[in-house]
Amino acid sequence: MNLDFEPERFRRLLAQASEQVLSLHASLPRSRVTHASSPRTVAEPFLGILPETGMEPEAVIQDFIPFIFEHSTLNLSPRFFAYIMSGGSQVGVLADLLCAGLNVNSAKWHLASAAAEVERTAVRWLGEFIGYRSGPGGALVSGGSEANLYGLRVARDVHAPDVREQGLAGSRPLTLYASEETHSCITKSVEMLGLGSSHLRKVPVHADFRVDVDRLEQAVRRDANAGLKPFCIVGNAGTVNTGAVDDLEALADVAERHGLWFHVDGAYGAAAARVEGVRGRFKGLERADSVALDPHKWLQVPFEAGCALIRDWDGLRRAFTYSAAYLQARSDSEERWDWMGHTFQLSRAFRALKVWMQLQVYGSGKLRAVIADNLQLMQQLGAEVDAACDFERLAPVSLSILCFRYVPSVGRRWDEASLDMLNARLLEECERRGQFFLTGTRLRGRTALRACLVNHRTTAAETHGLLAHLRSVGEELAASWEGGA
Amino acid sequence: MNLDFEPERFRRLLAQASEQVLSLHASLPRSRVTHASSPRTVAEPFLGILPETGMEPEAVIQDFIPFIFEHSTLNLSPRFFAYIMSGGSQVGVLADLLCAGLNVNSAKWHLASAAAEVERTAVRWLGEFIGYRSGPGGALVSGGSEANLYGLRVARDVHAPDVREQGLAGSRPLTLYASEETHSCITKSVEMLGLGSSHLRKVPVHADFRVDVDRLEQAVRRDANAGLKPFCIVGNAGTVNTGAVDDLEALADVAERHGLWFHVDGAYGAAAARVEGVRGRFKGLERADSVALDPHKWLQVPFEAGCALIRDWDGLRRAFTYSAAYLQARSDSEERWDWMGHTFQLSRAFRALKVWMQLQVYGSGKLRAVIADNLQLMQQLGAEVDAACDFERLAPVSLSILCFRYVPSVGRRWDEASLDMLNARLLEECERRGQFFLTGTRLRGRTALRACLVNHRTTAAETHGLLAHLRSVGEELAASWEGGA
Ligand SMILES: Cc1ncc(COP(=O)(O)O)c(C=O)c1O
Ligand SMILES: Cc1ncc(COP(=O)(O)O)c(C=O)c1O
Repeated sequence: MNLDFEPERFRRLLAQASEQVLSLHASLPRSRVTHASSPRTVAEPFLGILPETGMEPEAVIQDFIPFIFEHSTLNLSPRFFAYIMSGGSQVGVLADLLCAGLNVNSAKWHLASAAAEVERTAVRWLGEFIGYRSGPGGALVSGGSEANLYGLRVARDVHAPDVREQGLAGSRPLTLYASEETHSCITKSVEMLGLGSSHLRKVPVHADFRVDVDRLEQAVRRDANAGLKPFCIVGNAGTVNTGAVDDLEALADVAERHGLWFHVDGAYGAAAARVEGVRGRFKGLERADSVALDPHKWLQVPFEAGCALIRDWDGLRRAFTYSAAYLQARSDSEERWDWMGHTFQLSRAFRALKVWMQLQVYGSGKLRAVIADNLQLMQQLGAEVDAACDFERLAPVSLSILCFRYVPSVGRRWDEASLDMLNARLLEECERRGQFFLTGTRLRGRTALRACLVNHRTTAAETHGLLAHLRSVGEELAASWEGGA
Repeated sequence: MNLDFEPERFRRLLAQASEQVLSLHASLPRSRVTHASSPRTVAEPFLGILPETGMEPEAVIQDFIPFIFEHSTLNLSPRFFAYIMSGGSQVGVLADLLCAGLNVNSAKWHLASAAAEVERTAVRWLGEFIGYRSGPGGALVSGGSEANLYGLRVARDVHAPDVREQGLAGSRPLTLYASEETHSCITKSVEMLGLGSSHLRKVPVHADFRVDVDRLEQAVRRDANAGLKPFCIVGNAGTVNTGAVDDLEALADVAERHGLWFHVDGAYGAAAARVEGVRGRFKGLERADSVALDPHKWLQVPFEAGCALIRDWDGLRRAFTYSAAYLQARSDSEERWDWMGHTFQLSRAFRALKVWMQLQVYGSGKLRAVIADNLQLMQQLGAEVDAACDFERLAPVSLSILCFRYVPSVGRRWDEASLDMLNARLLEECERRGQFFLTGTRLRGRTALRACLVNHRTTAAETHGLLAHLRSVGEELAASWEGGA
C-alpha cells in the first residue's frame, strides 16, 4: 500500500503548495494581521468525523489551505507587534521542506549522521552568536519553555545527584530564585520537575523591572537557615513584559558565593547579547551554567526552534543518558555522536537544518543587523511616545519592547480605572480591525499596551503607523466613551 | 533589514529544494539505506566557525544538501527495518512546507485560530482511529516520549493534587508499575517528574513478553502495605522489543480495583488497535485514562508528531493551565480554544496540519491498509524463519516486529556465546554494506536480530530480500569465522 505519488504529480503538488506560500508572502504588505471570524466559523470546516475514504491532495490544498491561511494571525506581517514572535525566514521554509523530505531521526549518529554534525555546529554557532562560551554543551529543543526546563533539570540533577533514581520524596525541598517578572515557563518547569511552584521565590524588582539582587540574596540566606536547600538562581536576559535584563554579573556573584547553579533565561533577549549598543547590558551572561535561547524568536527561524545551552556536555549526559538493550545491541565507535544521550526526546526531527541554514545563509552579520534595526526602531518609538501628549511610557525600553498607554489629551479627566478600561478596549478594537496587532500586560497595577518587535520585515513605516493607528482608534473610543462595557 | 528574497527568486529556491526532495525519493529503489563514511568525513564540512558574512542559499542547497542526504540513513527506504520508524509520507512534506510558510504559533486561538481547530480535529480523529473514545482530551506533542510524559504527568498531578504547588519533597513516594519490556522513555519520564526511577516497578513478563499481571498486582499490594503510594499502571500496546501487547483488560481491572491511573504506551502499537486480525489484542485500551500514540510511527507522518490522549480535557488543564498577566490582558471569549492551557510548550508549531492532512488525504482506510499490509508481511517473514533451518525465531510476531537469529546450519557447532557474536557481527556487516538495515536487541540473554516494519513502501520483495541477504552475509561470516573480533 505505497502512499507515494507519481513523481510528476508530486512535483506539481510541491509547486501548488509553494504557490500558496508565495502568494501568502506576496500579500503581506496589504493583508490583515488578524481575522475577525467567530470561533464557530473557523471550526465549521473541521467538524466532520474521521473519513474512511480520503480526498485528493490537490483538492485539500485548494479547498482548505486558503481558509486556514485566512484564519491565521500573521506574525509574518510587518504590522505584528504582539507577544514575542518573529516573522520567520524564507530560508527556514526551504529548510523545513528539505527536512520533511528527508525525514531522518536525529536520535542517533547511525540514523542521521550529517544531522548529528549539523546540530553540533548549530549549537556551537548559537553559543558564538551570543558570546556565551566556545564549544558549550547544548541541544536544540522545541522552544524557550523546553530550553528553560532543560537548564533547571540539569541544575536539579547536579544539586541532588540521586534524584534520577530516588526521586524527591523524602528529601529537603530544593528552592530557586528569580524575579517576579520571570516568564511563566519557569514555573511550569518547576512544576514539571516535581519541585513545586511554592519553592520558586519570586523576588521583587526595581523601578526598571530588574531584579533586586540584595533581596534575592537575602531570600537565599533565609531559606538556607530554615533548612531548605537553595540550588539555583534564574536570571532574566530580556523579560517577556518589558525586556528588562537583570544584573547578570551580580547574580553570578551571588550564585558563586552560595554555590548555586546560575541559569539565564535568554529566550528572547540573549540573541542581542553581542549587538552593538546593548551588549554591555549582558555582562555576566558568560558566567551562566546554562542559558535558554530561542532561535524562533529574534533569529527569525520558523517554529519550532529552541536551544538549551549547558556549560558542559556532562550536565546534559548526567540528565539524559539512558540505555535500552535494543539501542545498544551494536557497538558504536566513540566518535559517533548520539543525540539521544543528550535530550529527553528519542525520535527527533532534523530541526538543526533550519537553524544551521539560517546562520549559514545570513551569517551573524545580517542576523545581528536585524536585531540592531529592531532595537533602534523601538527606541525611536519610545522617544515618540515620550514626546507625545496623548501617550505615556510605562517602562524603560530596554530592548525592543515598549510598554505604554494611551491617555486622551482632551475631554474628561481620566481616572486610573477608566484608563485601564480604555486601553483594554483599544487593544480589542485593534485586534478586531486587524491592521496592527499588539497585546497588553499589567505593570504595577496598570493596563499597558505592549508593543514588541522581533521581525525583520518591520520598518519605520510600520512603527510610526502603529502609533498613528492607536491614536486614531483611541480618539474614536475616547470620543464615544461611556465608562467601559 | 528585510531577509526576504525577490518573489521570483524564492519561487526558484522552492523549486530547487523540491527537486532535491524529488530526486531523493526517486532514488529510493536503488540507493543504499546507510552510508559507510567515517564520523570525521561527515563532520568535515561543518567544522568552521560561525560566518560573519553568509552564503547564497542556492549555493548552500547545491553544495551541502546532497552531502547531507548522502550521509543520512534512509528510513524512507523500503529496505529499512531498524527501530520503529516510518518512511514518512509525501503529504507530510507538503504540509510541513505549508506550515513553515505560514509560521503561526499554535499557542492561542487568537494567534492561530484555524490551527487550533485543526489540532482539535486531529486529536479527535486519532482517538477515533484507534477506537479510544469519542472526543477524548489530548494534544499533539513531539513524539512518543513526550506523549508518555504527559500521561504520567497528569496521573501524578491527579493523584497528588498539591504537587504543582508543594512539590514532592516530604511526601510519600509515588510508585508505578510496568513490565520489564517497557520503553526507556517511561523511566525518562519518571525521572523528569521527580518520581525517581527506583519507584518504577519493572514487573517480569511471561514467555510471550506480556506482563505478568498477577505479579504486578502483588507489587501494588506490597507497596501499599509498606506505606508507599501506588498511583499508576503502565500497559504496553506494542513493546519496542517484540511488539508484545499486554493484557490491557486485566491491567484495567487491577487499576480499577486499586484506584490507580491506567496509562497505555501505544506509541508503536496503538495505531493497529482497529485493524482487522489484531484488534482483539487491544481489548481494554478504551478503558485507559491516558494513551500515548505516535503518528510519526505507523501513521507515516514525518517527524515530529506524537499525541497524548487523556480521558478528559480536565486532566490536561489541571496540569498545564497557567496564566501570566501579559497573556490575559485581553478578554478572550470562552469559545476561543487556547492550546497553551493544555500543553507544556508555549510557542508551538502547527504540526497538526500534517497529522490532519495525512488523515484527510488518505482516510482511515488507506492508513489501516498500510498497517494490515505490514502485519501480514511480517507474519509471513516469521513463517519463513520458522520454516528455515538456518534461522531461529526468538519471540512471537505479535505485530510487525520479528526477533530472530541466524544459526548456521552447516559447519562447526555454535555455542550461545558464538551465536551472540555472530549475530552482532551480522548486524554490523549489514549496516556497513547498506542494502538492508536492521538492528538488534537482547532477549532472555541472547542477541537477537530485530526486524521491524512500519513503512508503506515495503513489499514482499523487500521482506524476502532481507532474509536472503542475511543468509548470504551470514554464510560468508560463518565460513570465515574464527570466534569473533
Ligand atoms: C523571556 C521568555 N522566556 C521563555 C519564553 C518561552 O518561550 P517559548 O514560547 O518558545 O516556549 C518566552 C516566550 O515568549 C519568553 O519571552
Ligand atoms: C513502545 C514505545 N514507546 C515509546 C517510544 C518513544 O517514542 P519517540 O521515539 O517518538 O519518543 C517508542 C519509540 O520507539 C516506542 O517504541
